[in-house]
Amino acid sequence: MRFLIPHISSAFSSAHNRIASRLLNALPTKPQRSAVPPFLNCQPPSMAASEESLRKALAEKLSAVEAHGNAVRALKAAKASKPEIDAAIETLNNLKLEKSSIEKQLQAAVSGGDGDGALSREAFRQAAVNTLERRLFYIPSFKIYRGVAGLYDYGPPGCAVKSNVLAFWRQHFVLEENMLEVDCPCVTPEVVLKASGHVEKFTDLMVKDEKTGTCYRADHLLKDFCNEKLQKDLTISAEKAAELKHVLATLDDLSAEALGAKIKEYGITAPDTKNPLSDPYPFNLMFQTSIGPSGLSPGYMRPETAQGIFVNFKDLYYYNGNKLPFAAAQIGQAFRNEISPRQGLLRVREFTLAEIEHFVDPEDKSHPKYSEVAGLEFLMFPREEQMSGQSAKKICLGDAVSKGIVNNETLGYFIGRVYLFLTRLGIDKDRLRFRQHLANEMAHYAADCWDAEIECSYGWIECVGIADRSAYDLRAHSEKSGVPLVAAEKFSEPREVEKLVIAPVKKELGLAFKGNQKNVVEALEAMNEKEALEMKAALESKGEVEFYVCTLGKNVPIKKNMVSISKEKKKEHQRVFTPSVIEPSFGIGRIIYCLFEHSFYTRPSKAGDEQLNVFRFPPLVAPIKCTVFPLVQNQQYEDVAKVISKSLTAAGISHKIDITGTSIGKRYARTDELGVPFAITVDSTKDVTIRERDSKLQVRVSVEEAASVVKSVTDGQRTWEDVWEKFPHHTSGSADD
Amino acid sequence: MRFLIPHISSAFSSAHNRIASRLLNALPTKPQRSAVPPFLNCQPPSMAASEESLRKALAEKLSAVEAHGNAVRALKAAKASKPEIDAAIETLNNLKLEKSSIEKQLQAAVSGGDGDGALSREAFRQAAVNTLERRLFYIPSFKIYRGVAGLYDYGPPGCAVKSNVLAFWRQHFVLEENMLEVDCPCVTPEVVLKASGHVEKFTDLMVKDEKTGTCYRADHLLKDFCNEKLQKDLTISAEKAAELKHVLATLDDLSAEALGAKIKEYGITAPDTKNPLSDPYPFNLMFQTSIGPSGLSPGYMRPETAQGIFVNFKDLYYYNGNKLPFAAAQIGQAFRNEISPRQGLLRVREFTLAEIEHFVDPEDKSHPKYSEVAGLEFLMFPREEQMSGQSAKKICLGDAVSKGIVNNETLGYFIGRVYLFLTRLGIDKDRLRFRQHLANEMAHYAADCWDAEIECSYGWIECVGIADRSAYDLRAHSEKSGVPLVAAEKFSEPREVEKLVIAPVKKELGLAFKGNQKNVVEALEAMNEKEALEMKAALESKGEVEFYVCTLGKNVPIKKNMVSISKEKKKEHQRVFTPSVIEPSFGIGRIIYCLFEHSFYTRPSKAGDEQLNVFRFPPLVAPIKCTVFPLVQNQQYEDVAKVISKSLTAAGISHKIDITGTSIGKRYARTDELGVPFAITVDSTKDVTIRERDSKLQVRVSVEEAASVVKSVTDGQRTWEDVWEKFPHHTSGSADD
Repeated sequence: MRFLIPHISSAFSSAHNRIASRLLNALPTKPQRSAVPPFLNCQPPSMAASEESLRKALAEKLSAVEAHGNAVRALKAAKASKPEIDAAIETLNNLKLEKSSIEKQLQAAVSGGDGDGALSREAFRQAAVNTLERRLFYIPSFKIYRGVAGLYDYGPPGCAVKSNVLAFWRQHFVLEENMLEVDCPCVTPEVVLKASGHVEKFTDLMVKDEKTGTCYRADHLLKDFCNEKLQKDLTISAEKAAELKHVLATLDDLSAEALGAKIKEYGITAPDTKNPLSDPYPFNLMFQTSIGPSGLSPGYMRPETAQGIFVNFKDLYYYNGNKLPFAAAQIGQAFRNEISPRQGLLRVREFTLAEIEHFVDPEDKSHPKYSEVAGLEFLMFPREEQMSGQSAKKICLGDAVSKGIVNNETLGYFIGRVYLFLTRLGIDKDRLRFRQHLANEMAHYAADCWDAEIECSYGWIECVGIADRSAYDLRAHSEKSGVPLVAAEKFSEPREVEKLVIAPVKKELGLAFKGNQKNVVEALEAMNEKEALEMKAALESKGEVEFYVCTLGKNVPIKKNMVSISKEKKKEHQRVFTPSVIEPSFGIGRIIYCLFEHSFYTRPSKAGDEQLNVFRFPPLVAPIKCTVFPLVQNQQYEDVAKVISKSLTAAGISHKIDITGTSIGKRYARTDELGVPFAITVDSTKDVTIRERDSKLQVRVSVEEAASVVKSVTDGQRTWEDVWEKFPHHTSGSADD
Repeated sequence: MRFLIPHISSAFSSAHNRIASRLLNALPTKPQRSAVPPFLNCQPPSMAASEESLRKALAEKLSAVEAHGNAVRALKAAKASKPEIDAAIETLNNLKLEKSSIEKQLQAAVSGGDGDGALSREAFRQAAVNTLERRLFYIPSFKIYRGVAGLYDYGPPGCAVKSNVLAFWRQHFVLEENMLEVDCPCVTPEVVLKASGHVEKFTDLMVKDEKTGTCYRADHLLKDFCNEKLQKDLTISAEKAAELKHVLATLDDLSAEALGAKIKEYGITAPDTKNPLSDPYPFNLMFQTSIGPSGLSPGYMRPETAQGIFVNFKDLYYYNGNKLPFAAAQIGQAFRNEISPRQGLLRVREFTLAEIEHFVDPEDKSHPKYSEVAGLEFLMFPREEQMSGQSAKKICLGDAVSKGIVNNETLGYFIGRVYLFLTRLGIDKDRLRFRQHLANEMAHYAADCWDAEIECSYGWIECVGIADRSAYDLRAHSEKSGVPLVAAEKFSEPREVEKLVIAPVKKELGLAFKGNQKNVVEALEAMNEKEALEMKAALESKGEVEFYVCTLGKNVPIKKNMVSISKEKKKEHQRVFTPSVIEPSFGIGRIIYCLFEHSFYTRPSKAGDEQLNVFRFPPLVAPIKCTVFPLVQNQQYEDVAKVISKSLTAAGISHKIDITGTSIGKRYARTDELGVPFAITVDSTKDVTIRERDSKLQVRVSVEEAASVVKSVTDGQRTWEDVWEKFPHHTSGSADD
């Protein structure tokens, strides 16, 4: 006999969805599988229509060219007159010109009307990535051994940016919200990841080159084939193009069999060797290992940090004085053994996650600080806008919550806080949107889910997932461990409550369904109140009902003697319940990469003979806050530089002295490329200049004040504008490029 | 033909030593295998002598008791007179009393004259660990699934302490010294760890219960057996005791065969089942996994972070403007699949390391900031003091360097900086010593090595290793990768240099040594200048010399035609060399655990009816800097508390509000147990009290000033004594326990 709590085993039949919902969207290494149907993402419907008519026109023109070509050859063979042949050739040439013109239009249409845009995005990325790698923001790991795909090191400036981002995350979320931060190991025993569903379902479909054994992601091969066909082969029919687009749109939903069939149908072979491919089969993405020396305890490198929080729920709830709501947080490494990593820092095999699990009473999802964010307005992309082919639009967060577009206040609060976090880091607010999951993207138990997507040269990238996952995770671990992970609300005085009780009669069910008894019992217990009362009524009137058991995938007949459904009255002193969890999950590496792109720009050198690279990092994330340059090599200036350096260290401002004899312009350029916001140039022993990176403006400040001025403006106590207003301006050309 | 650079392959024969030297001493999970011979550690030689004579006296007394017992029985059997029997019994009883007295003395001698001390250490640890676990400083990981040995979570206060320790480490080392911080993945391909020697040599010897398959560390079983025998069996002979002590002293040097023989000889069986044990065999301590889907690329979870720095040397050197010296640093997780973890946080399977690799020109190991630490005086334990049975003593660092006890200035500089780091965290300077490695502990290439050892209830624990590893690591990766990891000193004008050239004649060597040719060639090339010139002289005078090839383990005859040794003159524009590396390596978890013990104390409650627990964390590391309490539940006070809380958040001070109705004394006790240094109690709407944790003294401060006073004293801008002097004292008994 069980009270009506959605049962875990029956929920398990859709574990794939569940895992998918959490991981496809929240985790940073996941390829950007945008769940928005491609036709919405590429172009408005009118464009799609024009593409279709262009394909038809091109097919007609090709036939016409062929027919006229034949006609010309026939005229020549029949030795027709020269004027006659010339006229035919002119017609043919005109047809060819028309064909080229249609081809060009079609080419433009299939690349989203943005052929040049794609090129310039590519060029922009090249420039940014070259600078990032040259200045060691990141480095392919183990480079001297020719590296490992999907593993990157952060070099000194990248490491500093990362550490600044994480420190701000701690300040903005953990400290500001009094969250309970924990730090759990990466090595995780199998039982934990069985409970979470990862052992069974955390897989991608893979195919192997049948001769060399090289592995590929099945969906990538099919996707690449379709995209290439659509973009490069202009002769395919409009029907074929529509079919390929449909495949792209449904790629994520294809079963192994369906994927394999398509690969066969299209004759897709191994990209490198053209060898035939195996059928697709699931490959588990977790790095497996063995704990202890016996070889008998399988373990995995955790694919997310969240499970470490869930298994500690009981202790954390106690630590919080047995009170809800509270949030726990964790920053740490997570691992995913990608089949074939690509897209640089966006899809890697090891990455840093920062995750929050905010536990709430499912009956009260209000948030005390909600009003602080309700007035924010930013780009949101609700489900409805996606389905009707519109684009993201500016919405006031408070409106979205009050209209029910965002499910509840707490979810809304975190969306707002994530917006503030990202924009304060330096993410461009016009290239940041909150996209709601479509119904088919979400697990059945999830209440609502929004991704913070940031646009970069690879498209819109999911960087933060903010999901109301209801009680799913705590229930899964309660079930597997036998330890109840619940909260209690004590009543001031006992209450009489009416409870629905579903009691399957196991003996009768066993007789009727033998080995399937357990599945039927679980499905019966998993009915919600409405379903149960309908069944009760049906059994009373008809004596038997057909009942769908999802874990069996079929209907079974339920007789009146097989289950008792009743309402019972009880006196209760407290309400015991499994808390809901609202989970903001941050892919730190993805955020940092997008931040790099949003911060990068080039500007001509003073002489105009070269492009100089600049990262416009806000002081908060800049890897080095300040450089100190003696204008010329000179002992006096160097001594002053050292004095200033000492004050900067004492103030906790990361900085660098550059006493090389290089020209001051070159030294500025070097530090602009690292995104250093301020440079102190020593050109006298009394006062110095402070230069701001983006405006290149300079003020004069006394040696004694220099460090504290830089500190105040990097700490955010005042802005550069304040400094500019207060101090005398330095206008000599000598000190800039 | 090779110029004279010590050759790597020939160094490899002692890879075990090499790994041992780095890892036994630097890594935090390593069991505390103190390399100091036990007789030095336990007691001075005079004590050892007294133990020996006590054992002899006890053996004599036991024989005497037995003999007299027999005599008494004989008298009884012979029905001797009562007075005669009584007299004999009295003699026997006196003998028994004497025996007990000797037993007691011996017991005291074998437990280091400190039987009570051991007990109180155990009780102290129990009290500390109970508090730590109850307040969630740390938690056995995956507890609801009954945990995994050697894996721990840091709960909220532990996590905050850890994050404070790491932030201070970054400030004290990375920022203060302008180090290049990097962040490399944990997943590491096999080739890297083959080059470093870990794949081959990073092992512990293991035995298996032959029936159940349970695994044990072979040296642990032997050590436990010897210790138990020595401490509990007082009847063993002095010779036997000496033998067992010798085994303990040489435990680390025993081969698998020797260990196995001892286990057989002593009849040691599996501790749990008493089943027989297998022979010892090496078990590699790295967690193994597989990178990518093919199953063909073995990888490991890194056992240390240092290798990530070494493989990036070339890029980092370039980043530093091709200048030496510079230091790179890394904080990150490392992994070690311990056979049987014990000692709580001190020996775990996953842990945080913070490592520095300071690269220097081997010909110039001076340090520009050395003078800043040269005046420090603290406990050092040089090699000589260890060998001669003395104990650690206070030495001035500058003297140790100038007398050559510490090998060089840079090594000395880091020893001083580590001392400052640990003591500022709150480590008791009287329970911190720097112990130099004995000659047999160090790898052959290491110049010098010192461990920062902290005393806790488990004894002296290696928490930081500071080693001058010479050029070993860079050479190993140069060799394996084929990428030269070198630095260059450009000469202002070309220099004529005389270079020793050793050119083995491979053909002749091949004829003479067949398959061993390569070993001989490498050994010849690895000779240093002195050896080579001696060989040259000997060959010229005698035509043949005996030459020891360590990789063959024997002498071989070298004839004159087998090698040409000459001095050549060359003009050189630069000097190319492999930098030396000085490596301070911090086991963060071990430091934190020792810090917990050093900070923990108990004091009676005001009523005297219970002991209250306190952690005396300095504000720098305290998990929460301040609590805010309304004295009684009252809306006005709560509002004031919230205003103060807001200012604290704005000032970046982590704090907690406690508005429960619990008595103020209990609330203080609760936060003392978390080591919160300051409590603000709101007992009016105008001003409040600030209480200091250890002194329990209170001052009165205005509501407006409260946050900034707490900030100034937690930031270290002023001390509590300053605050105490400046503000009016609060003396009402109402606000304390």
